Amino acid sequence: MVETQRFIAVIGGSECTPDEARLAEEVGRELARKGIALVCGGLGGIMEAVCRGASAEGGLTIGILPGGNRQAANQYVKIPIVTNLGEARNVIVVKSSEAVIAIGGGYGTLSEIGHALRNGIPVVGLNTWSLSRKGQPDESIAIASDPADAVNKALNMINK
Amino acid sequence: MVETQRFIAVIGGSECTPDEARLAEEVGRELARKGIALVCGGLGGIMEAVCRGASAEGGLTIGILPGGNRQAANQYVKIPIVTNLGEARNVIVVKSSEAVIAIGGGYGTLSEIGHALRNGIPVVGLNTWSLSRKGQPDESIAIASDPADAVNKALNMINK
Amino acid sequence: MVETQRFIAVIGGSECTPDEARLAEEVGRELARKGIALVCGGLGGIMEAVCRGASAEGGLTIGILPGGNRQAANQYVKIPIVTNLGEARNVIVVKSSEAVIAIGGGYGTLSEIGHALRNGIPVVGLNTWSLSRKGQPDESIAIASDPADAVNKALNMINK
Amino acid sequence: MVETQRFIAVIGGSECTPDEARLAEEVGRELARKGIALVCGGLGGIMEAVCRGASAEGGLTIGILPGGNRQAANQYVKIPIVTNLGEARNVIVVKSSEAVIAIGGGYGTLSEIGHALRNGIPVVGLNTWSLSRKGQPDESIAIASDPADAVNKALNMINK
Repeated sequence: MVETQRFIAVIGGSECTPDEARLAEEVGRELARKGIALVCGGLGGIMEAVCRGASAEGGLTIGILPGGNRQAANQYVKIPIVTNLGEARNVIVVKSSEAVIAIGGGYGTLSEIGHALRNGIPVVGLNTWSLSRKGQPDESIAIASDPADAVNKALNMINK
Repeated sequence: MVETQRFIAVIGGSECTPDEARLAEEVGRELARKGIALVCGGLGGIMEAVCRGASAEGGLTIGILPGGNRQAANQYVKIPIVTNLGEARNVIVVKSSEAVIAIGGGYGTLSEIGHALRNGIPVVGLNTWSLSRKGQPDESIAIASDPADAVNKALNMINK
Repeated sequence: MVETQRFIAVIGGSECTPDEARLAEEVGRELARKGIALVCGGLGGIMEAVCRGASAEGGLTIGILPGGNRQAANQYVKIPIVTNLGEARNVIVVKSSEAVIAIGGGYGTLSEIGHALRNGIPVVGLNTWSLSRKGQPDESIAIASDPADAVNKALNMINK
Repeated sequence: MVETQRFIAVIGGSECTPDEARLAEEVGRELARKGIALVCGGLGGIMEAVCRGASAEGGLTIGILPGGNRQAANQYVKIPIVTNLGEARNVIVVKSSEAVIAIGGGYGTLSEIGHALRNGIPVVGLNTWSLSRKGQPDESIAIASDPADAVNKALNMINK
């Protein structure tokens, strides 16, 4: 019997600001320091920044790619999974993970937040979407103040 | 050469209030009156109500089912598509359609809104989610006042 | 309640010989005459020929497209379903159908035969693959002598 | 930049004979000895046997699961990917890999052979399907005489 890796997903757009990239890189470092494997969409932007951070600390990086070719993965992905499913791969990113940390605010990220909450998987947000439905705020996304707080909140929400 | 059907998706939860069901049924009727085929997730709640309305007016109803068996479709689905993909089928509902009308507010619906906006497919909302990102309102979801308005707005947004 | 369509899939490559196209077109005509809706992959070759036959007899044609755009459907597809799943859409073609008729022999067709037999969905073959496993012939694919025989065999295998 | 893992898939049924399990376990050992990560469907039978062999030699084991829960993975899977896509996940097993080794002969395995050959990914067989199309043998599956030969043939076919 082998010990299964614990996985946390980090989601965010393939384009991001330098500030968001710094947040993502530090989230990646923090996950690696805690021995958590990183799951992401495997491409650029937030995905590349978080993989760069994780691999700098020796963490395991898993990229669930939308296209048909492993060469599309960013250079910090150790385990590229080639789905060729386009955005339907977002569901796999989320469902493979115990918690999700969302950074920034693209619409693909919004779809992943929806899939995660639909499945009861905790979502922590750094500078991301906020939601209200039928006029009432939905506070399911836990707001983090910084990268270390994001990872801590994610771990606490899993352990509950 | 055959004339391809025009498709609009109606998305919403498998559980809904009686008021939401009335809205959905009337959206279905209105789509059918305009000769638009209905695409939905094929199950109960909003999906069943909108199919009931569409079929009452002789409209074509397409259900993109998450499970592995066509018997799971509601009784008003004429064309059941069996995906066995779980929620990844949400992407197919959205991408097969020229526009999306969201009714009510489940997290699966939120994921579909994200997939639609990501793909540049217009979204009209009736009593559904509202979004803000990074503290700024995102007004991509067009707010409709009633079912007829929802269908009109969807058609206008396509035609632009 | 609406009457659900009965569906039979016709599978075959996007390139085919003129003889195979004639077989496919006649299978399409025969399905339409019997009131069975046609499910296929929606593209060219066998898929286009069978849709042409079905639509010439007023049959309903459903194309489960691998790409992200309904414009890729052949001109005889009435109901284009846009999956953007690449070949993973082969599973949907098969699982949406009560039986499968395979014409010709590409590897995509082989994958669909595997998915169908795995799911207990009858497969009828016209000039297609034959299989043996571990040195023993596997005769799960019913061999048809011509298009009318293929449709009859498919219907008989469903009704059993 | 991290060094991307090299991946070979081993495919085979969730039920298998003791002889097939021995073949699979030895294939897993051989892959691990050569530093190749193993991709498989993550369940029992052939999949469990090959993971057991790989992990016994310290190899990396990746299970692409059909269901919605990582607990379904066999106990030798280190990296469980939760797809919830049912058999559509077969495409991911194949497309993530540089070559495929098929052991034994279920219909799911047949579908994976079809997907691999469709994508130009080399297939090596141990006691598995043989194919002919339109009456002519198709010799695309390289026949291996034993586990070491299977791994060698797979590596040679990649390197070509």
